[in-house]
Amino acid sequence: MRILVLGGDGYLGWPAAMYLSARDHDVAVIDNFLKRRWELELNAQPLIPTSTLQKRVQVWEEVTNHHISCAIGDLCDYEFVRTALGRFRPEAIVHFGEQPSAPFSMVDQRRSVLTEVNNITGTLNVLWAMHEVVPSAHLVKLGSMGEYGTPNIDIEEGFIEIEYHGRKGVFPFPKQPLSFYHLSKVHDSHNIMFACGVWKLRSTDLHQGIVYGVATDETECDARLATSFHYDGIFGTSLNRFCVQAVAGVPLTLYGSGSQTRPFLNIRDTLRSVELAILNPPQAGEYRVFNQFTETFSILELAETVRSQAEKLGCAATIEHLPNPRVEEEEHHYCPRHQKLLGLGLEPHLLSDVLVDSMLVAIRNHAHRVRRESILPRVQWDSTPGMAGPAIETRQSELSAVSMSRFSEWVLQRDVGGGAGMRFPPTADGEKLAADGLEEKAAPKAD
Amino acid sequence: MRILVLGGDGYLGWPAAMYLSARDHDVAVIDNFLKRRWELELNAQPLIPTSTLQKRVQVWEEVTNHHISCAIGDLCDYEFVRTALGRFRPEAIVHFGEQPSAPFSMVDQRRSVLTEVNNITGTLNVLWAMHEVVPSAHLVKLGSMGEYGTPNIDIEEGFIEIEYHGRKGVFPFPKQPLSFYHLSKVHDSHNIMFACGVWKLRSTDLHQGIVYGVATDETECDARLATSFHYDGIFGTSLNRFCVQAVAGVPLTLYGSGSQTRPFLNIRDTLRSVELAILNPPQAGEYRVFNQFTETFSILELAETVRSQAEKLGCAATIEHLPNPRVEEEEHHYCPRHQKLLGLGLEPHLLSDVLVDSMLVAIRNHAHRVRRESILPRVQWDSTPGMAGPAIETRQSELSAVSMSRFSEWVLQRDVGGGAGMRFPPTADGEKLAADGLEEKAAPKAD
Repeated sequence: MRILVLGGDGYLGWPAAMYLSARDHDVAVIDNFLKRRWELELNAQPLIPTSTLQKRVQVWEEVTNHHISCAIGDLCDYEFVRTALGRFRPEAIVHFGEQPSAPFSMVDQRRSVLTEVNNITGTLNVLWAMHEVVPSAHLVKLGSMGEYGTPNIDIEEGFIEIEYHGRKGVFPFPKQPLSFYHLSKVHDSHNIMFACGVWKLRSTDLHQGIVYGVATDETECDARLATSFHYDGIFGTSLNRFCVQAVAGVPLTLYGSGSQTRPFLNIRDTLRSVELAILNPPQAGEYRVFNQFTETFSILELAETVRSQAEKLGCAATIEHLPNPRVEEEEHHYCPRHQKLLGLGLEPHLLSDVLVDSMLVAIRNHAHRVRRESILPRVQWDSTPGMAGPAIETRQSELSAVSMSRFSEWVLQRDVGGGAGMRFPPTADGEKLAADGLEEKAAPKAD
Repeated sequence: MRILVLGGDGYLGWPAAMYLSARDHDVAVIDNFLKRRWELELNAQPLIPTSTLQKRVQVWEEVTNHHISCAIGDLCDYEFVRTALGRFRPEAIVHFGEQPSAPFSMVDQRRSVLTEVNNITGTLNVLWAMHEVVPSAHLVKLGSMGEYGTPNIDIEEGFIEIEYHGRKGVFPFPKQPLSFYHLSKVHDSHNIMFACGVWKLRSTDLHQGIVYGVATDETECDARLATSFHYDGIFGTSLNRFCVQAVAGVPLTLYGSGSQTRPFLNIRDTLRSVELAILNPPQAGEYRVFNQFTETFSILELAETVRSQAEKLGCAATIEHLPNPRVEEEEHHYCPRHQKLLGLGLEPHLLSDVLVDSMLVAIRNHAHRVRRESILPRVQWDSTPGMAGPAIETRQSELSAVSMSRFSEWVLQRDVGGGAGMRFPPTADGEKLAADGLEEKAAPKAD
């Protein structure tokens, strides 16, 4: 099948492209490296050196003899999107191409607007281009379980039958998301459902849980095929972060009590779920939702599990409760369904089986690259912006704080009339170049 | 009270500004005339000559001795919004400042993205600026009854208690909007609810029905204070359009069977509802929804009513059913609640009482300005864009079609190598200048 992967340079997009290519699909990827720019901007380097997309596509072909086509462009540029769809004529489009971080979306006004505008515009453009040039294609869209929030009733897969005052109807499950990022996914879901209804497009909206894991069969073929793995306070998800903290010998940091319960899945199950959705497409005009996760844990359970498993490897870890930077309920009901993908044949990789080998050992191989100062949360959900600058700057880690204070001096000099002699702050001593993340030296094999 | 009206140049924004100013509030308005540009772009002139905002503010002060401050700027420009809120320090912000047309949002890719990005960004900017500089202010946001769609259960005011498998929760009423415009309002609603929760802002989301009417106490003070009244296929709403068709002696055009039922309210009730919301603000952190309409009618009932009332004035009108350009159910349950504003003291102006005097007579005074060719629907919800150009251009009225064909010749000449000698199409003979809508000659008084 001809499958186009949007966001093919990312943590999940790249492994998905390889996974589908390995299964003899004709795969093309699109990316514009915006996320790499945000990483540089926020000084958040992936744990494992990640080659350029073009390089990885080349290595993939060398190693497997499978070709992945690659187009560099912005989903917010409609002419690019329409041209790409018109030339490749995908039968399925897997859409990972969005700003993926809740903390990023809460940093400040600019980044919240950027998140919503970028994600909504990209998805709208894909819908219009499908309508225009490939109306039979199947859009497999990465949504989020966070769209639902934590309601006091069981969470169905996308829709709920409501009986009210003697009448009945089937409704989109009411959404109560908890960040501008999750809001952008809710907006996408509404837009996609509408487009399927009006234009008879077909789409599967994968309401995905929190993905963990660093290795897939394909990334393990060659160290140069590694995917971008984040453990920092902006792009790192909780379990990935805990594993890195355990290996680095720093406390596992919970937000609040840690009794918040969340849905999780292994990166391998993400890939298989996407494949199952592709192989079992919906009807024309159908918008469907799969809740894509395999297990739920409280954040505290998760930390305890990581701590005890890490001990087996000789890593003594402690757990620390931080004030919760997010605005969320810590004690709540949580019972989301996830039958549809199991019904299509998903066989979950359970956390208990993969934690040590696929996570802790793999991370230990890169332990020398862990930057401890980037792990702690830097974004406060309810902080008040003010003269001191946006949240991200007032809560910078020690290293970045140095740069910031020099920047402030510079701003001051400029403001008091430094005039034409604008002086940029010197590079902080000892700060590694951000480009370090792109080094091509082969890293040790993952396991 | 200090009240800031966003979109103060528009059909509702300008009358609201005058209404609040007349009641001794300290009123400021913001606009950037984007809607006037869209009118020019789509050749959709308001029925009644409408002076510039600056001129109307000046006339208002001459006539009533009340001052309205005026700031020209774009809600999508955050620095402008923050500065405006910081300087005026409003206690209430009435937000009419959005792209207001469903057909406009369905014209093509560009206008659908523009609608969502413009509306979402403007509202997000207002929320961030409130958070930053006026966190106690009350945002009175104009949403739409169209956010709900036409569900098979009764529509509550914003929220619904759902009992499901033995558990209960109160949820935002699930939304099923029917255009990209209505989707933008749904996205706003989600964003505002989230901001109220996280930042303890306060907001009333007025889910407004279809507004009709041309006259308010304030517009009637002086012909130069008239508001922008549309009857065209893009910016005109159904009842306003029917009245103009009856007066112009052309058939009243229904979309499909006309059994679609919709909620309506008079323009005077819009103003009073906004005032009631302002005078009864929610608590900090509270997001509430009022369903703002007074009556429901099927579109056919509405047309029949206009036809029979118009006959009393000697206007013989017929009713014509057009193929429905929208994708919507024509037979459906429709029972929305609207108790909250009545509970606060709203006394509805009923259609039967105001139709002849406030609408038909007022419109007859401007009958010479009716441009019949702009009344018919030009936008098809499910049209397929293609080589023939976007929907709006392929369905142009006769007059515009002339311009378009000349434009096509020009494009052709350019494409086949007209080179540096690019020739712009001549102005179509007899086509009045679009600026005609801005003429300042006093029009006859409305009644």
